Amino acid sequence: MHATAFHDDDTIAAISTAPGEGGIGIVRLSGIRALQIASQLFRGSRQFDIASVPTHSLHYGHIVHPVSEEWLDEALLAVMRAPHSYTREDVVEIQCHGGMLPLRNILDAALTCGARLATPGEFTKRAYLNGRIDLAQAESVIDIIRAKTDAGLQLAVKQLQGKLSAQVRELRDALQQLLAEIEASIDFSDDDIELISFAQIQCELRRCLDELSRLLATAREGKIVRDGLSLAIVGKPNVGKSSLLNLLLQEERAIVTPIPGTTRDAIEEYINLSGIPIRLIDTAGIRDTDDHVERIGVERTRQIIQQADMAICLFDRSTPLTAEDRKFAEFVADNDKLIVLNKADLPAQWDVADILNLFAAPVSPIELSITQHLGVDALKQAMVERVLDVPLESVAVTNARHKQALSAAQASLRHAEQSAQAEMSPEFLAVDLRDALRHLGDITGETTTDDILDRIFSTFCIGK
Amino acid sequence: MHATAFHDDDTIAAISTAPGEGGIGIVRLSGIRALQIASQLFRGSRQFDIASVPTHSLHYGHIVHPVSEEWLDEALLAVMRAPHSYTREDVVEIQCHGGMLPLRNILDAALTCGARLATPGEFTKRAYLNGRIDLAQAESVIDIIRAKTDAGLQLAVKQLQGKLSAQVRELRDALQQLLAEIEASIDFSDDDIELISFAQIQCELRRCLDELSRLLATAREGKIVRDGLSLAIVGKPNVGKSSLLNLLLQEERAIVTPIPGTTRDAIEEYINLSGIPIRLIDTAGIRDTDDHVERIGVERTRQIIQQADMAICLFDRSTPLTAEDRKFAEFVADNDKLIVLNKADLPAQWDVADILNLFAAPVSPIELSITQHLGVDALKQAMVERVLDVPLESVAVTNARHKQALSAAQASLRHAEQSAQAEMSPEFLAVDLRDALRHLGDITGETTTDDILDRIFSTFCIGK
Repeated sequence: MHATAFHDDDTIAAISTAPGEGGIGIVRLSGIRALQIASQLFRGSRQFDIASVPTHSLHYGHIVHPVSEEWLDEALLAVMRAPHSYTREDVVEIQCHGGMLPLRNILDAALTCGARLATPGEFTKRAYLNGRIDLAQAESVIDIIRAKTDAGLQLAVKQLQGKLSAQVRELRDALQQLLAEIEASIDFSDDDIELISFAQIQCELRRCLDELSRLLATAREGKIVRDGLSLAIVGKPNVGKSSLLNLLLQEERAIVTPIPGTTRDAIEEYINLSGIPIRLIDTAGIRDTDDHVERIGVERTRQIIQQADMAICLFDRSTPLTAEDRKFAEFVADNDKLIVLNKADLPAQWDVADILNLFAAPVSPIELSITQHLGVDALKQAMVERVLDVPLESVAVTNARHKQALSAAQASLRHAEQSAQAEMSPEFLAVDLRDALRHLGDITGETTTDDILDRIFSTFCIGK
Repeated sequence: MHATAFHDDDTIAAISTAPGEGGIGIVRLSGIRALQIASQLFRGSRQFDIASVPTHSLHYGHIVHPVSEEWLDEALLAVMRAPHSYTREDVVEIQCHGGMLPLRNILDAALTCGARLATPGEFTKRAYLNGRIDLAQAESVIDIIRAKTDAGLQLAVKQLQGKLSAQVRELRDALQQLLAEIEASIDFSDDDIELISFAQIQCELRRCLDELSRLLATAREGKIVRDGLSLAIVGKPNVGKSSLLNLLLQEERAIVTPIPGTTRDAIEEYINLSGIPIRLIDTAGIRDTDDHVERIGVERTRQIIQQADMAICLFDRSTPLTAEDRKFAEFVADNDKLIVLNKADLPAQWDVADILNLFAAPVSPIELSITQHLGVDALKQAMVERVLDVPLESVAVTNARHKQALSAAQASLRHAEQSAQAEMSPEFLAVDLRDALRHLGDITGETTTDDILDRIFSTFCIGK
C-alpha cells in the first residue's frame, strides 16, 4: 500500500452535495474524530450517545452550534464506522436542508469543533490510501460524476468495479512472473537449474504486448465515449457546409450541455450521434470578406481542422474543381476524414477519380444531395462507423494518464523484446521489465508518486 | 387533519439533491411501495431482504436496472419506515455518485418499477398532509433552503420548529374559547346560566387584537430579513448620489447573489448592512441628456422611488436650493426615508430649516461630507435603525401569505369589537370570530383549500 500522507488524528469535513438549491444537502465528516465532532453538533430526538450507536444507522434530530447551542437545522445523521465506510475511516454524514446557508453553517460548526476542510477529492483519496479501492477505481469516481453519455457512464462504472484494474493486474502478474524467472537466470546462471530460454521470454513478451495493444486500441473509443468528439465541416464557399450542419442539427437531437473545457465558438453546434456528443464546427464561420482577414481565416481554418478529431470534406459535383478544393484536400490530408461529393442531384462536372487523385491515401467518397435528401443516411452511417470504428469493449481505456502509462509500458516491453531477440544479457531485460511494471503500477496506484496523486485528486470536486 | 389528496398506493420518487456536480447525490422514494421498488433496484454487498431490514438503517451495495440488470452505480441505501420518516410514509433514499447521469438513470429505474415522479414540494406536502408538520412549518422548509442571510435562516428555522405556529394556535385557542362562550350565550340566552358579558368579550377581543398587532408588527422586519430591502438614492444631478453609492459599496461587503425575483438594472448594486442584503438603486442612472428621454427619466425615477422600501434623499448644502430639490422632496414625501445634507464641509448656502419646510412630516437631516468622511457612520447607523427599527422578535412573520391572513383576522376581530361595543346580537360576533379563526387556520393549514396548497408547494424545488 502507498505511504499515507495524512495524520491519524486529522478529521476532514466538506459539503458533499452539489452547490445550489436542493431538497437535501449533506456535510460529510471522515476520520478518527468524526463521531466525537458529530456528538458535539447533534442533538437527537431521543437521548443517546453517538459514540455507541451501531454502524450504518440513521438518527433524527437537529444540529446546534457547538458554542452558542443555537439551532442550525433539522438533521438526519448517518453513522458508518471504520472500516465499513467510503474512506474506511469513521464517517458521519449530516443530512440537512439543501440550501447553501444551512450547509455552510453546519460545515462551519464542524470546523469549529476541530475538523479540517477537506481538499478536492480527499475522501476518495483516503479510500485509495486506505486500500479500499485502487487508483484507477478512484479516478473512475469523477468520471461517473461528470459522465456526459450513457456509454461513458457505463465505462466509468466498469472501471469503478475494477474491471480495468483486473486486466492491468493480470498483465503485471504475468510480467512479475517473467521477471522472477529472468532474475533466477541471472542469479543461478552458473548452476545446473533449468532456466527460461530466450524463445520462452520472447513468446511471453509477445503475449503481453498483444494484450497491451488490445487495451491501447480501446483508448480512442474510450476517449470519444467519455469526452465526445469534434468534427470540422470543411470545403470552399457555397459547397454546402452550412446546409449539412443544419441538416444534422435538425435530424439528430442536439444535447444541451456543451463539453466542458472546450471554448464554445459561434460556429459550433452539438449533436448526439448514437449516444456520442459530437461538436460540429462549421469552418464557414471563420472566413471573412476582407482580404487580410481572409488570410487569417484560412490559417485558422487549417488549425481548427488539425485540432479536430475528424473532418467532413465537401466538394461540389456541379461546379468544376478549383485550386481551393485542392487546398482543402491538402488541409485534411492527415485527418481522420469523410469525403462528401455534394449536389449529386445536379449534372456532374468531374469524375470521382478526380477526387481520388487529390488524396495520397485511398478514400471512399459519399455522394450527397441535401436538397433531395440522397446519401444522408449513408453519411450518418459512415460517421457512426468512423466515430466507433471497433465495437466498444466492455473495458476501455478512457483516461489519458492510463493511455500514457500503457504506451510507456509498451515501449519498455518492445525494448525488452529486441534485447531478447538479440539474446542480450538478462540484466538488460530485467531493467525493461521493471520499467514496464512501474508504468503499469502507475495505473492502479501501486507505484504512483505523491505529486501525481495530488494532481489527480485536485481535479475532483470538493466533498468527494 | 386536512383531507388527503393522494392515493395510498402512490409512491413518489425524485432527485433530492441540488442539480449539478457533487460528491453525493440522492434519489428519494416515499410511499407504500418504496421498499418494494428499492428491492427491485438494489443489490446488497450481502444478501438480505430489504423488506425486513430495521428502520433507520444504511446498506451498502449497488443499483441495477430492473430489466437489464445492468450496474447503474454504487449506492448506499437509507431505509426509514413509516411513521418515523420525513413524510411519515416508508422512505428510501438511494445515495449514489452526485452526477446528473447516474442520478437520472437511477430515477428512471425507480419510475420503471412503478414510482411516480414527485411534483415540486410533494415530499414536504405529504409531511404536512400526514400531520407531521403544519403548513407554516412546511413553508419554512423552502425559506431555509433559499435563506440569503443568517437572520433570515434563523427566522425560518424557528418557523420550522413551530414557534410561529404555536403563537397562532394560542390565539386560535383563545378565540375558540371566546366563540364557545358567545355561542353558549346564543343557545342559552333564555336560561338562567351565567353568560359572558359584552365587557368581557371586549376585553378578550382587545387582548387578541393586541397580540395580532404585535405579530403583524414583525412582518416588516421579517420580510426585510428574508428578502432584503431596496433603497433608492435620490437627488438632483451632482448632489453626490454616485459618490454615496461608491462609498457604501467600498465600506460594506457586497453580497454576490442578487435577490431573486428582482430585475437587476445597470444602476443597481448590493451591500450587506448588518446581515441584511440591501439593493441600492442609484436613480442618477435613469436620467439621460436628451430632453424627451429626460421627461421619461423623471417619471421612472418617481416610480422607482415609490416602489423602493426606503429612500435616501440628498441635498447639496453648498449650492442654493432649486425647484428640482423641491421636486425630489415631493417624490419621497410618502416614503420611509433618510434626509442627507451633503457637502457639509463647504460653506452652507441655506439653513437646515429650509429643508424641514420642504416636508410636511418632521425629518431629522444628517449632515454629510463624503470627501471629508464626515457623518458617514451616523448615516449608516441611521440606515441600520431604519432597516430594523424594532429589535427583531424571536418569532417574526416573514411570509406575505401569513401577513395577509393575520391582517384579515385583525379586520374580522375589529369588526367584532365594534359589534361588541354596540352590544349587537351575539350572532354577529360569532360570524366575525369564525372568520378570524378561519383566517388564522389558513396559516397553520387547518382550513387551507387545495388550490392554495397547490400554489404554496409549487414554489418548492423538486425532491423536497
